[in-house]
This record gives sequence, structure tokens and C-alpha cells, in this order.
Amino acid sequence: MTTFKRDFTVEWGDCDDAGIVFYPNFFYWFDSTFQAMVRSVGLNQREVRSRFGAVTPLVDVGATFKSPVTYDDVITVYAEVEEWAERRFRIAYTVKCGERLVATGFEKRAWAVYTPEGGIKGASVAPEFKAYFQK
Amino acid sequence: MTTFKRDFTVEWGDCDDAGIVFYPNFFYWFDSTFQAMVRSVGLNQREVRSRFGAVTPLVDVGATFKSPVTYDDVITVYAEVEEWAERRFRIAYTVKCGERLVATGFEKRAWAVYTPEGGIKGASVAPEFKAYFQK
Amino acid sequence: MTTFKRDFTVEWGDCDDAGIVFYPNFFYWFDSTFQAMVRSVGLNQREVRSRFGAVTPLVDVGATFKSPVTYDDVITVYAEVEEWAERRFRIAYTVKCGERLVATGFEKRAWAVYTPEGGIKGASVAPEFKAYFQK
Amino acid sequence: MTTFKRDFTVEWGDCDDAGIVFYPNFFYWFDSTFQAMVRSVGLNQREVRSRFGAVTPLVDVGATFKSPVTYDDVITVYAEVEEWAERRFRIAYTVKCGERLVATGFEKRAWAVYTPEGGIKGASVAPEFKAYFQK
Repeated sequence: MTTFKRDFTVEWGDCDDAGIVFYPNFFYWFDSTFQAMVRSVGLNQREVRSRFGAVTPLVDVGATFKSPVTYDDVITVYAEVEEWAERRFRIAYTVKCGERLVATGFEKRAWAVYTPEGGIKGASVAPEFKAYFQK
Repeated sequence: MTTFKRDFTVEWGDCDDAGIVFYPNFFYWFDSTFQAMVRSVGLNQREVRSRFGAVTPLVDVGATFKSPVTYDDVITVYAEVEEWAERRFRIAYTVKCGERLVATGFEKRAWAVYTPEGGIKGASVAPEFKAYFQK
Repeated sequence: MTTFKRDFTVEWGDCDDAGIVFYPNFFYWFDSTFQAMVRSVGLNQREVRSRFGAVTPLVDVGATFKSPVTYDDVITVYAEVEEWAERRFRIAYTVKCGERLVATGFEKRAWAVYTPEGGIKGASVAPEFKAYFQK
Repeated sequence: MTTFKRDFTVEWGDCDDAGIVFYPNFFYWFDSTFQAMVRSVGLNQREVRSRFGAVTPLVDVGATFKSPVTYDDVITVYAEVEEWAERRFRIAYTVKCGERLVATGFEKRAWAVYTPEGGIKGASVAPEFKAYFQK
């Protein structure tokens, strides 16, 4: 998969008293872009659960803010799985408003499978899942 | 049960560009107060599920806004089950900031039980549940 | 203006522990649809402020839930200003998922203008604003 | 200032379809804890604006998740300004549920002052502000 992208409109309710995006919303957009990327290959969380018995919990996340956006701005979130480890993968995000760089960020997710007891435990990423998103 | 109440601080992230609370947050506070009210009698959603096999989905909600609040304000949400029908109950909410009336609202919730097929269907409110919240 | 409509994808983060939309999000979608409707005639909150010296605070809101939606569902919110009073207007919303009715709701908004002291007070809706949205 | 701390209840609406906290909410709690820490010394965003002509926009944020929390859990967020640069400061956060470590994170904030044109530009952190939070 080449870079996946998704547009969002910055809504009135996404902004704070200072008139710019309340920053936790960037992570909502990251997660929503990840879900859409997964959807774009015909999967979703339910499919990942039923086909692989797996979930992809967050391990580590971060974001760096470059320039502000405010309501009515349309932003594009670019996503790319940039790193695969045995039991982890890391998605890099870039947020732009037209040509202007707004933010960068990442999500490191684990691959975890359900245990017979109903808990989850780390496991090797399913090769079939990985194949969808590898460049 | 007499009136239940719960305090919330209006957070920076709860306000919008106009510097006042973004109104959907009032419903977040209504729901959070309902959950706390249920907790106050030793129940919660998990208990309601395991003890009664039931959930309490929303049927109808509303709010009327009287005066604005902004970040750092501490508000108190008062809740009271004001009406019981066979398969429904209605909770009335009043939001105050000190003595000042901020908003009023309500949630009408259904009582629904799980079916063997995994769906839910309307049912009579469990008398034991009702007894907790009746005045 | 005929009915305005806008699509939203129900995101993972919009759902709750029960796997359905956490209901305050419907009001986020109502407000976001209102903002888009205002945008569709070449206005937005900033324009309304600079051109009319006005804001449109919420007075009264409500919603009725007909059937659940969950993440990955695409919903359409239909909006229509269904009532004009001297200093108020009421927007009716209908939410559908394909042909299925999901929810209905409304927002009653006031027209308020800035006072020289920096406060706001109720005023007659600007005829130019009204003209945009009247059928 | 020694470590500042603040409790939050994980609400029903903070959790996602998997029954655990939807992770962007951790940043909402970080920001809310920062605001409360600022409040605890008699300041707030308005005071910072009027007294110093300044704002504290986010530059860089991150979080690492150690163990899940779900609704009804009470978490404590510990905050400490752990680093001061000329025009930046970094707040370290630790989230616990009782003795259990839930997450760690940080916010790097800039000190920025309003320009006569109404924009903002980076500036040296006001010594008076720094004095409040230095150990």
C-alpha cells in the first residue's frame, strides 16, 4: 500500500477557547484515519477480530504541531505503516492544510490475540494483515 | 432516592471558539451523572447486565440552556428519576453554577433485555432496579 | 433553501462500551451540519459575526433515537430551518443510515448581537440571514 | 511546586467499542490536569493572557500506554514541569489507577506573546510564571 489519505473538516466543536483545534482531536483523526486505512483493504476491527482473533491496542503515540488550524479548515491526514516489528507496527501520520504542514505524529500498535480465558496477549503480527499494508 | 448530584469542572477542552461550553458536552455530563447515580446504589452498567440481563438505551433526550458557563466554572448536575412507565423511565436534570441556573434537561431511557439471539428487546423495568431510584 | 444534507462516518471513537454511538455525538453532528449549511451559502460563524455583529446561541435542543448505528456506518444528516420567530429559528434534523431512520432532532437557536459593553443580547434575526435559509 | 495531582473518573462515554478508554481522552486529561495545576497557583488561561500577554501552545506531545482502564475506574494524573528551556517547558504526566501504572506522557509547551498585529510569537518564559512551577 502506498500512502493512505483521508480528509476531515475541522468542526466548530473541535476548537477551543483560543479558536484553534483542541489538540487531542488530532489523535481522534489519527485513529479515524487508521480505521479508514484498514477499511480500505476490506477489513475493520470486527473483521480483524473474527478473521485473526486479534486486536491492535496502542502502545505509544505522539504528535508534533507545526501550524494551527481552525474551524472550516479542511485537513488531509496521510498515513503510512513505516515500521514492522515482530509484534508491533508503527504508523506515521502527516497532517496538511492544502500545502501547509500542520502536524506530524505516529501510533505504535501491538498485535494481540484473545486467550481462551478472554484476556489478550501479545503475538506475532498475522502475515496476511501485514501484507495488506506493506509497501 | 432523593435528588442525586454531581459536580464537574468545565474544562478548557469543553469550550468552543466562542469561549462557552460546546453544548453536546451537557449530554456527556447528563450521562455521566446517570452512571454515577447508578453507581451510588451499588450498580453499574456491568451489574445491570449481569444481574438483570438488561441495558438502558436512550429513547429521547433534550436540554434547554439558560445561561452560559465557561472553563474553570464548577457546575453541579442534579438528577432525579421523575417518571416511571412500564418499559421506560425519565430522568430530569438541572445544571447550576453556584445558585445560577445554567440548563435543564432530560433523558428518557428504555429498559431492554438481551434475547437468546443476542439482540435486545423492550421489557418491563425490573422492580428491584426501580426500587433503588423511586422516591 | 431546500433540505441541506451532510454525510458522516461513524468513527471507532464515537462508539461506547455497548458498541453503539455514544449519544451526545448526535448533537456534534447536528451542530456540524448546521455549520456546513451556513457555509453552503457563503457564510460561517466569523462572517456572521463580522457582517451582522451576531451569534446564534442554542436555546433548546432535543433528539429521539429510532435505531442504533455503529462504527463504519455512514449516516446522512438532513437539516432544514423549519420555523422562524422574531428572534429565534428552529432547525429540524433527520439522521438516516441508507433508508433506515436513525434519529430525529432539533436545535432552536437565538439571534443575538454584541452590545457595546462586549456582552450579547437578543435581537431580531437579520432578514438577509433569514433569506438564505427560507424555503 | 512538588508534583501536582488530579483525579478523574473514567466515564462511560470515554470508552470505545473494545470497552477501554479511547486513547485521545488521555490527552484531554493531561490538558485538564495542566489547567488545574495552573489554577492551583491562582492563575488560569485568562490570567496568563491578561498578566503576561501570553499563551502556552502545544509543540510536542506523547503518551505510552501500560495497562488499560475502563469505565468507573478512578485514575490519578500526576503532573510535574520537568524541564525549562528559554522559550519552552515540558510537563511530565503519570497516570495511575490505585497503585497500577496506566500510562505516562508529556506535553511540551511554548511560551508565546501576542504581537501588536494580533498574532503570536515565541518569547522567553516569564520568570514569574516559571517561579510558580519550579521545584
